[in-house]
Amino acid sequence: MPQPTALITPGDLSPAEAHALEQALQAGALVKGTTSPNPPVGAAILSAEGELCGVGGTQPTGGPHAEIIALAQAGSMSRGGTAIVTLEPCRHTGRTGPCTQALHKAGIAKVIFIHADPMREAAGGAQELQAQGIKVAQLQLEVPELQPWLSSVRLGRPHITLKIAQTLDGFTSAADGTSQWITGPAARENVHQDRCTRDAIIIGTGTALADNPSLTARTPSGELYPEQPLRIVIGSRPINELMPQGNLAELGFLQFPDIPSMLSEIESLGLRDVLVEGGPRLAGSFLQARVVDALRVYIAPKLLGSGTPSTLGAGVNTLIEAHEFELRSTTVLGEDILALYQRRNPS
Amino acid sequence: MPQPTALITPGDLSPAEAHALEQALQAGALVKGTTSPNPPVGAAILSAEGELCGVGGTQPTGGPHAEIIALAQAGSMSRGGTAIVTLEPCRHTGRTGPCTQALHKAGIAKVIFIHADPMREAAGGAQELQAQGIKVAQLQLEVPELQPWLSSVRLGRPHITLKIAQTLDGFTSAADGTSQWITGPAARENVHQDRCTRDAIIIGTGTALADNPSLTARTPSGELYPEQPLRIVIGSRPINELMPQGNLAELGFLQFPDIPSMLSEIESLGLRDVLVEGGPRLAGSFLQARVVDALRVYIAPKLLGSGTPSTLGAGVNTLIEAHEFELRSTTVLGEDILALYQRRNPS
Repeated sequence: MPQPTALITPGDLSPAEAHALEQALQAGALVKGTTSPNPPVGAAILSAEGELCGVGGTQPTGGPHAEIIALAQAGSMSRGGTAIVTLEPCRHTGRTGPCTQALHKAGIAKVIFIHADPMREAAGGAQELQAQGIKVAQLQLEVPELQPWLSSVRLGRPHITLKIAQTLDGFTSAADGTSQWITGPAARENVHQDRCTRDAIIIGTGTALADNPSLTARTPSGELYPEQPLRIVIGSRPINELMPQGNLAELGFLQFPDIPSMLSEIESLGLRDVLVEGGPRLAGSFLQARVVDALRVYIAPKLLGSGTPSTLGAGVNTLIEAHEFELRSTTVLGEDILALYQRRNPS
Repeated sequence: MPQPTALITPGDLSPAEAHALEQALQAGALVKGTTSPNPPVGAAILSAEGELCGVGGTQPTGGPHAEIIALAQAGSMSRGGTAIVTLEPCRHTGRTGPCTQALHKAGIAKVIFIHADPMREAAGGAQELQAQGIKVAQLQLEVPELQPWLSSVRLGRPHITLKIAQTLDGFTSAADGTSQWITGPAARENVHQDRCTRDAIIIGTGTALADNPSLTARTPSGELYPEQPLRIVIGSRPINELMPQGNLAELGFLQFPDIPSMLSEIESLGLRDVLVEGGPRLAGSFLQARVVDALRVYIAPKLLGSGTPSTLGAGVNTLIEAHEFELRSTTVLGEDILALYQRRNPS
């Protein structure tokens, strides 16, 4: 009969386990944006004596999972040791063998994991480890980097974040169209860093034609980050005909006529975490379709009183219909505020 | 020849002085909203042995200044002691005698003050204390509660804070006019607490007629706070004729036809710190007049996409003309963000 998995909190961890947890979390955060359709998991191994002897993050599709990387690093030191993993170890054979078997074979005595695996075919890892005599505990903690993937499994579609960079009064450009720069350098750098962690960036044809944005993720000195997200344009206007130089196609943009066709298509492409970058009509359409799972809002210390609003056509007439979110964090970036929100009551 | 005053930082304070500083800051904050035209100053006295023996805040006009209250509490224990005051002690005889004399007479050996007194007739207190053999140091620190008063002296007009309570996309009500409630209970309670610290609250005739707001400062249970700010309506529409019940006049509202006439009038009434609460056209007029010194923005976790904007007619056409502010702090109030700003480059 399956035993219930012990639930623990960060306060229950030994100092060595707490340190290994930090390493596992960092390793997972580091690979975010490179692992889809797999989750960006991190793992760390402590020897029986409590020495940190292995750390790893999930490799791109077809490559080893986080546990396998960390176990390989630890070698024989894992015997009798503890594995800390941000997601419940899988017990199924996909493109790689099950991690539960690898942990057992390496002689791991204890596994601490954070989020339970919500995929039907992969779940049950904790039970299987316990059946093999391994002590298992689930740590009550939220790993921010895993939330989009967890949400995409729950919803059966990619997790969608709407990015807005606006003045305090909600404008993305002034009445005459000027918009460089609404936000400051720290916020703009943060946008580029964030793009690296996404599977795709989405814009409307209007924005593509008006701004011709390359939507690449660049370092402050202008160099391209090694990992570039896919770029997607939504709308039926034929961009490549209107732009004879055809640079959007050369840059590898995908185009879809509308949101539903894009969503069903990119799910099968293995995308799990996408970022909508505008313009206002596209933002409004995503809101009206009620598929915005998170907001990433950069707020500049400016008032314009008029201009291009951050969203248009969001479909709200009365306050009770407002698109409601939950505040998750605020960060000051130079002169700007970065506020992160999650949809209240995910649909 | 006058000696330069020693400049010190909070790190230079002894533990007893640091504790007295906290008490002086609290005493000043507590009387904010009750002292105009005088500044809301706080003072604390340490005995020669370092014991806290007196704390006080400036009393309403005509009453004693903070130092006098604190000295009276300390009695003979002030002999050889230290006084910590949030503003340089005055050396002039206004409605009350000079504080420099009182400190000298009480036998104070050392005075630590924070902000220099910018009023010509009152300044020079530090020099006078030193001439009497008292050690004097200026503490490098910013006292938030004194900023509006300091700004009003510098500008020769009341300090003006624009309050905005809006959705993330800058709306104060939905397209159909519904606005109760944009922000949550913690933000609304904060609004009432803040009103108590202001000399007056200002609205336009449009808001007065539409909302008939009583603009009182109330506790969460609905009781009136003991100190109520003056209420001011700006606009030429005759409110009392349009509202036959005349309740605005009964409530003691003042009415002025426009911003310039209001500003010159209320300066002579002794008001130093006023809050503009809307509506959007009045907010736009204050911005266009370039007299908004600070913003107090409550941001609710909602998107509407349309509705009543927080400001109208702010007079900006291109980004470079934007009304620019400096972020001073962000606070999470329940589900909402409270962001405080100061005007960049005060005019």
